[in-house]
Amino acid sequence: MTTTFNVAIVFASGYGHTKAVAEAVAEGANGVEGVTATLYHLPDVDWDALDQADAIIFGSPTYMGNVSAPFAQFKDDSSKRWFSQAWKNKIAAGFTVSGSWSGDKNITMTTLQILALQHGMVWVGLDLMPGNNSSAGSPDDLNNVGATSGLFVQANVDQGNEGIRESSFATARHFGQRVALATQRWGKEG
Amino acid sequence: MTTTFNVAIVFASGYGHTKAVAEAVAEGANGVEGVTATLYHLPDVDWDALDQADAIIFGSPTYMGNVSAPFAQFKDDSSKRWFSQAWKNKIAAGFTVSGSWSGDKNITMTTLQILALQHGMVWVGLDLMPGNNSSAGSPDDLNNVGATSGLFVQANVDQGNEGIRESSFATARHFGQRVALATQRWGKEG
Amino acid sequence: MTTTFNVAIVFASGYGHTKAVAEAVAEGANGVEGVTATLYHLPDVDWDALDQADAIIFGSPTYMGNVSAPFAQFKDDSSKRWFSQAWKNKIAAGFTVSGSWSGDKNITMTTLQILALQHGMVWVGLDLMPGNNSSAGSPDDLNNVGATSGLFVQANVDQGNEGIRESSFATARHFGQRVALATQRWGKEG
Amino acid sequence: MTTTFNVAIVFASGYGHTKAVAEAVAEGANGVEGVTATLYHLPDVDWDALDQADAIIFGSPTYMGNVSAPFAQFKDDSSKRWFSQAWKNKIAAGFTVSGSWSGDKNITMTTLQILALQHGMVWVGLDLMPGNNSSAGSPDDLNNVGATSGLFVQANVDQGNEGIRESSFATARHFGQRVALATQRWGKEG
Repeated sequence: MTTTFNVAIVFASGYGHTKAVAEAVAEGANGVEGVTATLYHLPDVDWDALDQADAIIFGSPTYMGNVSAPFAQFKDDSSKRWFSQAWKNKIAAGFTVSGSWSGDKNITMTTLQILALQHGMVWVGLDLMPGNNSSAGSPDDLNNVGATSGLFVQANVDQGNEGIRESSFATARHFGQRVALATQRWGKEG
Repeated sequence: MTTTFNVAIVFASGYGHTKAVAEAVAEGANGVEGVTATLYHLPDVDWDALDQADAIIFGSPTYMGNVSAPFAQFKDDSSKRWFSQAWKNKIAAGFTVSGSWSGDKNITMTTLQILALQHGMVWVGLDLMPGNNSSAGSPDDLNNVGATSGLFVQANVDQGNEGIRESSFATARHFGQRVALATQRWGKEG
Repeated sequence: MTTTFNVAIVFASGYGHTKAVAEAVAEGANGVEGVTATLYHLPDVDWDALDQADAIIFGSPTYMGNVSAPFAQFKDDSSKRWFSQAWKNKIAAGFTVSGSWSGDKNITMTTLQILALQHGMVWVGLDLMPGNNSSAGSPDDLNNVGATSGLFVQANVDQGNEGIRESSFATARHFGQRVALATQRWGKEG
Repeated sequence: MTTTFNVAIVFASGYGHTKAVAEAVAEGANGVEGVTATLYHLPDVDWDALDQADAIIFGSPTYMGNVSAPFAQFKDDSSKRWFSQAWKNKIAAGFTVSGSWSGDKNITMTTLQILALQHGMVWVGLDLMPGNNSSAGSPDDLNNVGATSGLFVQANVDQGNEGIRESSFATARHFGQRVALATQRWGKEG
């Protein structure tokens, strides 16, 4: 019998870009046999399902340099889980989307990391070399912005999801797969 | 005729600790001749008054490693001011309160800094050497936690404002004075 | 036959405080059966041993708000390992020591995290609730500064290792044990 | 008689990209009447000149997620100035260069900010709206990466300075001008 691992993806999304990226992350995770990824679009979240999950991936747009207010509300509300250490030793990872190629996505990612680490979770980043940073580089490379600590996606501010490159979606699928594989390797508590 | 400088202090406070610190910051700023400090307890904020202010001091408790949701909502809402660059070149500063002596107050402060800098504001930190870090040190020293980038205050989680040391309030008054003096020196746009 | 896991502890230390903490981390890790911890005091480091290690714990004092220059040199030199992805999927963790109770230890820890994540490593933080933050709290509590993302230690600047509390050493031993157990759970690839 | 303001630009540069950006920053600052910018290429630095400067702009490439070792050495060495508070109330700003469009430039910039704020300096960021983040955007826009807290420049890793866009140099000149104007407005201590 195969053990099933549950990956919860909890995200805020204002205009739909982050939602589209979340779906690509889920697709990547679901592609790993024995892993089931479930999406929770804030403020709709199933706390019991999070408590049962083997991994939680946190996602938020970067607004004014950090996570959006709906994500911050979720962060604050999660303090109940911290008091009971309910998420201790789960796998964690994060993603963020902004209009700028750099902007302050690192600051958002630090917020997501610190949240996970306060919960006693174990953090998995992105494992792709940076694309698009040489004379032959192209925005169509995987990891086109050169993220390390999680998944960073650039989305044009005056477009819908057509303003997100296919390379970014492919990076998101890879990222979902990486977190799913790490969750399997980390395994159930013995 | 003396020019008057307006310092707005915009803060979130869940249990009253951050409010008490905000009041001490205001007291310090108001002690500088020609400076008037006004407190805005989120979510109650007067956006027109902020637009007219010469300086804005941002304050939030540190909850789960970052600013609280009410502060994050204010941050997001301030994007309208960013579009119009309404706060460009104002003086900015920040403070945060948490139960732990360190905890993740630095991460909250980074959030406040990045918000201010995205608005094109000019950031003033704390100018006190660290106290309480030698064999003769004491929690009753000014700057008892050794903050640099803004005002950090430790408040016991199971107490009201009696759980905040007088040295912390004195540090807060000094910080308010420092920001007020910096606002005067920076002056009105020529 | 028991599998042996190797935990490398690579640290910079200017005055000996960080070295003393590193030794306590090693003691905690060595206390886990099947785990061997080895200390590398920068600039003396055995790169081949790091390549063979199952986990690397990074340590540095906080000087002027970040890692010290010898640690930064090690960070830069590790780029060769990044090019070959030699440390990908190893377990990583970090610790820092400063005179202040807060100071900028979070910033140092962010530096250590980002380094590990660029290498594709998996980050383990501290899993202790904060001590010393209530009316009944005491600096003699475990995790007396309230760290989350790694191990933070306060050391008086005018003293040697007698200026580090036994509670801090006990926290360091716990932290070493936690990283060792996480390394075992993560296991050997494949 | 016009008061002269001195802006010191202290930078590390491994392959020449950061040096080229530093020169553009200097050009922008020198373009402001009454301002003289001077470049210090680490490890060559004139500490007395820094003590006399009205503003110090810090620059470093981003290597493995943070400032390079030569910059970290300068940071550590500056502790003597911190003890004497020699740089208190000077204007400060920062820039960094990396191969990636995002990468971890934010983390490097946080390091530069924290250094400046520990010295009691006053931090000036970039005041340009983000370019290159809409359907009509282009890497040839000013602020093509969307930085807020300082100057971020992308430079191709397999090229010399021809791998840096003219828009990035123009952004650097603007940034130098902004810091120079802020230094004038802040003025000499009364």
